[in-house]
Amino acid sequence: MGRWEPDSRGRLQEAALALYAERGFDQTTVAEIAARAGVTERTFFRHFADKREVLFGGSAVLKERIVAGVTDAPASEGPLDAVSRGLDAAAAMLGEGRRDLSQLRQSVIAANPELRERELTKLADYSAAVSAALRQRGVSEPQATLVADAGMTVLRIALEQWASGKDDRGLDDVMRNTMSNLRVVTADR
Amino acid sequence: MGRWEPDSRGRLQEAALALYAERGFDQTTVAEIAARAGVTERTFFRHFADKREVLFGGSAVLKERIVAGVTDAPASEGPLDAVSRGLDAAAAMLGEGRRDLSQLRQSVIAANPELRERELTKLADYSAAVSAALRQRGVSEPQATLVADAGMTVLRIALEQWASGKDDRGLDDVMRNTMSNLRVVTADR
Repeated sequence: MGRWEPDSRGRLQEAALALYAERGFDQTTVAEIAARAGVTERTFFRHFADKREVLFGGSAVLKERIVAGVTDAPASEGPLDAVSRGLDAAAAMLGEGRRDLSQLRQSVIAANPELRERELTKLADYSAAVSAALRQRGVSEPQATLVADAGMTVLRIALEQWASGKDDRGLDDVMRNTMSNLRVVTADR
Repeated sequence: MGRWEPDSRGRLQEAALALYAERGFDQTTVAEIAARAGVTERTFFRHFADKREVLFGGSAVLKERIVAGVTDAPASEGPLDAVSRGLDAAAAMLGEGRRDLSQLRQSVIAANPELRERELTKLADYSAAVSAALRQRGVSEPQATLVADAGMTVLRIALEQWASGKDDRGLDDVMRNTMSNLRVVTADR
């Protein structure tokens, strides 16, 4: 990137999310995104492979962080506590981002069936990775998959609540609170 | 259906699943399915709208049964117990079916990314319906969504285990056992 394009990635992301929300994802072109961000299309493609990557770009790194959190949890911790460590790592990464952009992203995905399927597939992929990390820790099936899936539900719900802006707390607090809710509600008879 | 086509629906289903497993879903034509089942293509289309419906045809009825199980649970029962009633209803319906066909169906879906996405979307749809039924029972958010999602994970895992044939028990037993596992693993610190 040249000096004449300060934070073009950030501006492209913001422009793309605003346009997706205004016109719909399918109706937005890369040319329009670049124009609104004040950069060329070529600059867009230096940062993103396509329109979708604006929405799903960070997901490989996020998965790594979550899995590392699980893997690095003290050996003495049970599966749900290990998953909580993974979610703490996710909250640390995602909580750095702008809440308003996270909210825009979610509303764009909710409005488009293909993007919703993609998001579900992404979460299922995280869950499979977490489940594998738990099996590495000696957790057997079906416990590993049950806990991994429940953990990804906690991630999804906490992100939605945080992004909604109805709640002033940081993502880390919302995440822990959602995890506590899971424990209470599955313990209640 | 004429008398000369006894259980053509069942034979079509069996033929379709066998062909999807042998050749792949995308590579199988309706003409081939009909030929293997010994009926005409017209008969296929009297039973199924398309190739996908062979795999996802019963899902609206299943959703209704699950939701009815949750809704009809005694008012005194907590959310996870209400969801267990829904899963009992699912087990009663699905456990009637042939285990080998259920296994074929799962392997066909696992082998095809689009079908996997469709299956995830179906489960997410069930979860949203169960969550709505729980809110009707006075369960607040995020508890309703957490329990509904966890319940659909139990459904998925129990079905996989039952269909795998590694376990002789009926689907109802496998379902309850998976639910107990969820309770234990989320209670464990």
